[in-house]
Amino acid sequence: MAEVKSDIEIARGASKKPIMEVGEKLGIPGESLLPYGHDKAKVSADFIKSLQGKPDGKLILVTAINPTPAGEGKTTTTVGLGDGLNRIGKKAVICIREASLGPCFGVKGGAAGGGYAQVVPMEDMNLHFTGDFHAITSAHNLLSAMIDNHIYWGNELGIDLRRVAWRRVMDMNDRALREIVCSLGGVANGFPREAGFDITVASEVMAILCLATDLQDLERRLGDIIIGYRRDKTPVFCRDIKADGAMAVLLKDAMQPNLVQTLENNPAFVHGGPFANIAHGCNSVVATTTALKLGDYVVTEAGFGADLGAEKFFDIKCRKAGLKPAAAVIVATVRAMKMNGGVKKEDLGAENVEAVEKGCANLGRHVQNVKKFGVPVVVAINHFISDTDAEIQAVKDYVETLGTEAVLCRHWAEGSKGIEDLAHKVVALAESGKSQFAPLYADDMSLFEKIETVAKNIYHASEVIADKSVRDQLKQWEDQGYGNLPVCMAKTQYSFSTDPNLRGAPTGHTVPVREVRLSAGAGFIVVITGAIMTMPGLPRTPSSEHIRLNPQGYIEGLF
Amino acid sequence: MAEVKSDIEIARGASKKPIMEVGEKLGIPGESLLPYGHDKAKVSADFIKSLQGKPDGKLILVTAINPTPAGEGKTTTTVGLGDGLNRIGKKAVICIREASLGPCFGVKGGAAGGGYAQVVPMEDMNLHFTGDFHAITSAHNLLSAMIDNHIYWGNELGIDLRRVAWRRVMDMNDRALREIVCSLGGVANGFPREAGFDITVASEVMAILCLATDLQDLERRLGDIIIGYRRDKTPVFCRDIKADGAMAVLLKDAMQPNLVQTLENNPAFVHGGPFANIAHGCNSVVATTTALKLGDYVVTEAGFGADLGAEKFFDIKCRKAGLKPAAAVIVATVRAMKMNGGVKKEDLGAENVEAVEKGCANLGRHVQNVKKFGVPVVVAINHFISDTDAEIQAVKDYVETLGTEAVLCRHWAEGSKGIEDLAHKVVALAESGKSQFAPLYADDMSLFEKIETVAKNIYHASEVIADKSVRDQLKQWEDQGYGNLPVCMAKTQYSFSTDPNLRGAPTGHTVPVREVRLSAGAGFIVVITGAIMTMPGLPRTPSSEHIRLNPQGYIEGLF
Repeated sequence: MAEVKSDIEIARGASKKPIMEVGEKLGIPGESLLPYGHDKAKVSADFIKSLQGKPDGKLILVTAINPTPAGEGKTTTTVGLGDGLNRIGKKAVICIREASLGPCFGVKGGAAGGGYAQVVPMEDMNLHFTGDFHAITSAHNLLSAMIDNHIYWGNELGIDLRRVAWRRVMDMNDRALREIVCSLGGVANGFPREAGFDITVASEVMAILCLATDLQDLERRLGDIIIGYRRDKTPVFCRDIKADGAMAVLLKDAMQPNLVQTLENNPAFVHGGPFANIAHGCNSVVATTTALKLGDYVVTEAGFGADLGAEKFFDIKCRKAGLKPAAAVIVATVRAMKMNGGVKKEDLGAENVEAVEKGCANLGRHVQNVKKFGVPVVVAINHFISDTDAEIQAVKDYVETLGTEAVLCRHWAEGSKGIEDLAHKVVALAESGKSQFAPLYADDMSLFEKIETVAKNIYHASEVIADKSVRDQLKQWEDQGYGNLPVCMAKTQYSFSTDPNLRGAPTGHTVPVREVRLSAGAGFIVVITGAIMTMPGLPRTPSSEHIRLNPQGYIEGLF
Repeated sequence: MAEVKSDIEIARGASKKPIMEVGEKLGIPGESLLPYGHDKAKVSADFIKSLQGKPDGKLILVTAINPTPAGEGKTTTTVGLGDGLNRIGKKAVICIREASLGPCFGVKGGAAGGGYAQVVPMEDMNLHFTGDFHAITSAHNLLSAMIDNHIYWGNELGIDLRRVAWRRVMDMNDRALREIVCSLGGVANGFPREAGFDITVASEVMAILCLATDLQDLERRLGDIIIGYRRDKTPVFCRDIKADGAMAVLLKDAMQPNLVQTLENNPAFVHGGPFANIAHGCNSVVATTTALKLGDYVVTEAGFGADLGAEKFFDIKCRKAGLKPAAAVIVATVRAMKMNGGVKKEDLGAENVEAVEKGCANLGRHVQNVKKFGVPVVVAINHFISDTDAEIQAVKDYVETLGTEAVLCRHWAEGSKGIEDLAHKVVALAESGKSQFAPLYADDMSLFEKIETVAKNIYHASEVIADKSVRDQLKQWEDQGYGNLPVCMAKTQYSFSTDPNLRGAPTGHTVPVREVRLSAGAGFIVVITGAIMTMPGLPRTPSSEHIRLNPQGYIEGLF
């Protein structure tokens, strides 16, 4: 067998085009592209404004089965499909999320695809990129500083020190900052209180940036953030602290989508990266709507499996931004089917058709779920070299029983050439006019009913349980005018249930709601059904110990 | 009188050239300039390496009298002189520091010059610029996270939790973070301990970036950082934590100097910005040495007055980087002379020749001090419209008694046209071959003697006093091999003495050393002689309350 190159070797061997040429392909004039080096650029807000009124391309969502340690390759397939569509003559644009810096120093860098379906420059995307996340960190922490400063100078707004809801953020895995006491050291440093840090991607500012339609909308949403409560429990807003204007200024550049390219020099927008649990887990609305004006096809993805990612993409992002997806691709692998069928990771190398058949239940559930949103579906089998013909056929046969097609894709090994079939199938689906997209629930449904609707229809749970305090809180928000917001479910990504070990397609389980949080600026109610970590820690031997520049100036250990 | 335009109006009216053209002027090929937008670029490390062996231009330091509320215009004069030298046909490059983000939200943005002597784009330079400070923040905090992570996983190095010397940083004025207790909340979050945040410009990483000659030197210096001590008081290094490699990776781009332009389209490097008290207060060595290879003249400045700024520029930066300044300009204003002569700020409008004459003592001291380094001096009188002819003449006459010339400069109002005389004078001085630069003290002098040498020769103090604990600490560092380091004095910038209210040219005072700190990576001993604030706070009504985007998309309130 030929030597298999690593992702980073392939990425470094890429013959990148100047980003201005990539932009030209999409009709973006040079002066409207703000370069960051020669291979990254931001698309100017003025140019984006000038696109209003142009017709939209077709939006394709790439989603997946529940993740397993075997890997599915959702981003790889998103990138591959974009290349594949370009290969068959369609003007296609890819839209994916930016990577968070912190976790890169923990386990490994979050690659932007893999094999011959990657977005470059990979190193930059895993480090500072164009500085968007740093801008979000600054904007978030400016508000934090202004809150404590307000309290320090007399607390005119009457903020209850015990009820400050706005924490600080850092784009770093630093467990020591999860819970702190701040303002120690005497009179000059303020009033001591409990506080803490989340990782930047968990910031509501990140979710807001990803949902805002333009700078005005951004500033309005920032103003809507609830930073804490008074002793009478009335909310205090970011607007009251007068931080919204300066925060918008800090985010001015970050609001402009980043253009990079695939290994095959096709355009990709990489912009925004909200958590897929306490936020909605999709790239920015601005990037997606801009791409739709510039391309005939836009291929995008959503975080985690379809139960979380696709549901939030449809019910939050598409609902809020008025997007109408034309088709969805659900990525599966034979290996993941086997794991869902009970095979251990170390046994994945051996053929096991029975386990594949058994594990397909998870895939089937996702296929049927996505169809509930009125969006036509195709399954992409992301090929691994260990897959046998019989195993692949088993997946195809199973998917056919659902009235859907499964297409084998070899983009990882072959680039766009290996994903032509899927590209043709996606075009056929998107052009069929079959999509009748609608969110799962109406805006005016009660908040608790919204949670039940998702739990029953998507998770196939039998019931949702919540303490009176949670139900009372939801009621209170409804009374305050937040009842029309969608719900943003924070649940384990490994199962349809709230038990991460429950693979396959469980039914009859209970969804316990532990806590609810109002993200008034982003515009959703976060519903927490388990332990959600908003500040990760580093492992015993963090990858940062091995990251360095080698004598050739290349980065080692990041990937 | 004609309407006087504000700095920001002038800056916005600038006809900027594409940064590639500005780079071309210096002979930097397009592929060696990494653009950040169309008006900022980084000069690639490879290109910088290719300059080795080229002859150096002449280095001109712009320094100043002790700052007063009247303002001196040191940066304005640095920029003006750069333009002036270009105007008279010299190839001149300006080297100044980057602005810190945090303070911009407190009182006002740190402008890069003023009037018709400015560097643009001003807004960007006061916000994220090219992300250098964010990279420094990330690198610093990665080390912090790795320290607490090391302790969490068993503390193999035996770090004493009470002696962790490495704090965290944020580019924000946030007094609530000065003193905290971190790692609260139980087993999963680590071992609670006292900790705190400094502002990013106070980070030793900033000082290191500004003194490192290349990426290899950077990584070595990062490894040398002392992060804390064991119970037996032996030091633990960054290298022991294995963070140096990943920190260098995070700083890879930040090490490359930023090129921007003046209002007159002349090249300016804006790179690095260490504190001028607990660090050395100069722009990066890499920017200065690169500029010296590209220009016939390099005009640079140092923080605060010459007692702190020029002394550290000479004794730390020039000593370490092997730079030989050819001439120095000391900026003074009639207004500042008057304040030094006892006039209150509200009375500055009225002519007062006597006060000017009296205040000149401060200027005179600085002139004589700078000469002690063997560098020829010229005084620049930065003209204000309220200055009278008699007052200006008084300054000129006084300076002449010192065997030095004072030149009136109108660059603020007239740009390069108003500073031709100074440019000619600087060229004459630099070409005279008079400079016999040498640092004030030898490397092998004891640390305490070094402090005494600065205090007696520059501050004209009669003695330095320090507790036994301070003297013992200095001795210990000498025993450990740090005795050859220069001292970095942290003293009030408002006086030659340690009393900020003691203007003029005091003698016979005492310099009490409160504390000494070893910056082993940066390579100096910080000597603290008063209260040094490393994390500022916000005022009662921070300027951030008024900063916003106006409907035209311009930033309001930042300047």
